[in-house]
Amino acid sequence: MKLYGYFRSSAAFRVRIALNLKGVKVENDFRHLRKGEHLTPQYAAINPQKLLPALQLDSGQILSQSLAIIEYLDETHPQPPLLPRDPVGRARVRSLAMIPACEIHPIQNLRVMAYLKDQYELDDVGTSAWSRHWIETGFDAYEASVGKDKNTGAFSHGDSPTMADLCLVPQVFNAARFKVDMDRYPTIRRIHEACMKLSAFDLAQPSKQPDAEA
Amino acid sequence: MKLYGYFRSSAAFRVRIALNLKGVKVENDFRHLRKGEHLTPQYAAINPQKLLPALQLDSGQILSQSLAIIEYLDETHPQPPLLPRDPVGRARVRSLAMIPACEIHPIQNLRVMAYLKDQYELDDVGTSAWSRHWIETGFDAYEASVGKDKNTGAFSHGDSPTMADLCLVPQVFNAARFKVDMDRYPTIRRIHEACMKLSAFDLAQPSKQPDAEA
Repeated sequence: MKLYGYFRSSAAFRVRIALNLKGVKVENDFRHLRKGEHLTPQYAAINPQKLLPALQLDSGQILSQSLAIIEYLDETHPQPPLLPRDPVGRARVRSLAMIPACEIHPIQNLRVMAYLKDQYELDDVGTSAWSRHWIETGFDAYEASVGKDKNTGAFSHGDSPTMADLCLVPQVFNAARFKVDMDRYPTIRRIHEACMKLSAFDLAQPSKQPDAEA
Repeated sequence: MKLYGYFRSSAAFRVRIALNLKGVKVENDFRHLRKGEHLTPQYAAINPQKLLPALQLDSGQILSQSLAIIEYLDETHPQPPLLPRDPVGRARVRSLAMIPACEIHPIQNLRVMAYLKDQYELDDVGTSAWSRHWIETGFDAYEASVGKDKNTGAFSHGDSPTMADLCLVPQVFNAARFKVDMDRYPTIRRIHEACMKLSAFDLAQPSKQPDAEA
């Protein structure tokens, strides 16, 4: 399999964690987001959505959208499971995963920030404030969802990592770049620290990728 | 079961279609988004994410995030299936569903538009241009993904509706409000028309809800 990614992409980071947890080795094909290497006709022929990541199967078929890729990996490589077995638990994990994946990251990713700069003449201070606002809105929701729920364990759901943690950790890395005050989110911080003790998470972080920049 | 929703919420619309297709009857509890009825402490105790929709099960448990709710309904009420059986097909459907659910709707929903008006003094013309831009970006990706793919049938994937169609149709309704030129998207338009011939989609549309306003 081949993973099209970029070291700093939160969505690619999620998939890297899943691959590490499942023990699946892939070839890497890095596309530099800031240089627009995902916008070429050649890449559009691979992934018509022109987004990272994409996973090319050995059959040649291409999967896109990080959560769809993670669900595929969980269905085809069941151990260790990234979703609990009971339908209500699965719904809880998916809902938590969607706080970063739907409610935070899409609103403050590179293309939205570029559009804000281009259309409304925001500078880096302005786009940082925008990012912080949506990260904090989402983290308020995440903290409220995990803080007092008896289903929360060492991780977001129980005592092993799930798809929710795979989405949370890259968003915490992103939050650090925008200087979000994590003292407001003690449960998120505790879960993040538990995740980062696992090599599957540690080795997936942006600074440890071959295409990493300072 | 009880569905917390709002007639014009695209995310609630997706769940209404799923419930109709599955033949599941629910009690409705409408929360007026524009009046902020989802932001009260009473509703936050129901759904800490303070978003619509939420589905209360007969056990009292609350599910949130439309795609997580739809996956739950598909797992617990398998007929008719909203995802194909093969893992690659499931990944394709989930990826398509996430174009509206992750790449369009979260960037141009009510709270983002309210923030743009508040922070950058955009007026209705400005927020409409913003919405149109992200709808068109997402629809370009969707059209490119379904237009020439042999897996596309009468619907986005094959000849029966899937989770992808449940996400696409509400976004097409939303696009009409912002006067997006649908001539650019012949496959999307064809799929939308096929969906709207089904009573499950027709009866879920905003104007046919008890809380609908002009």
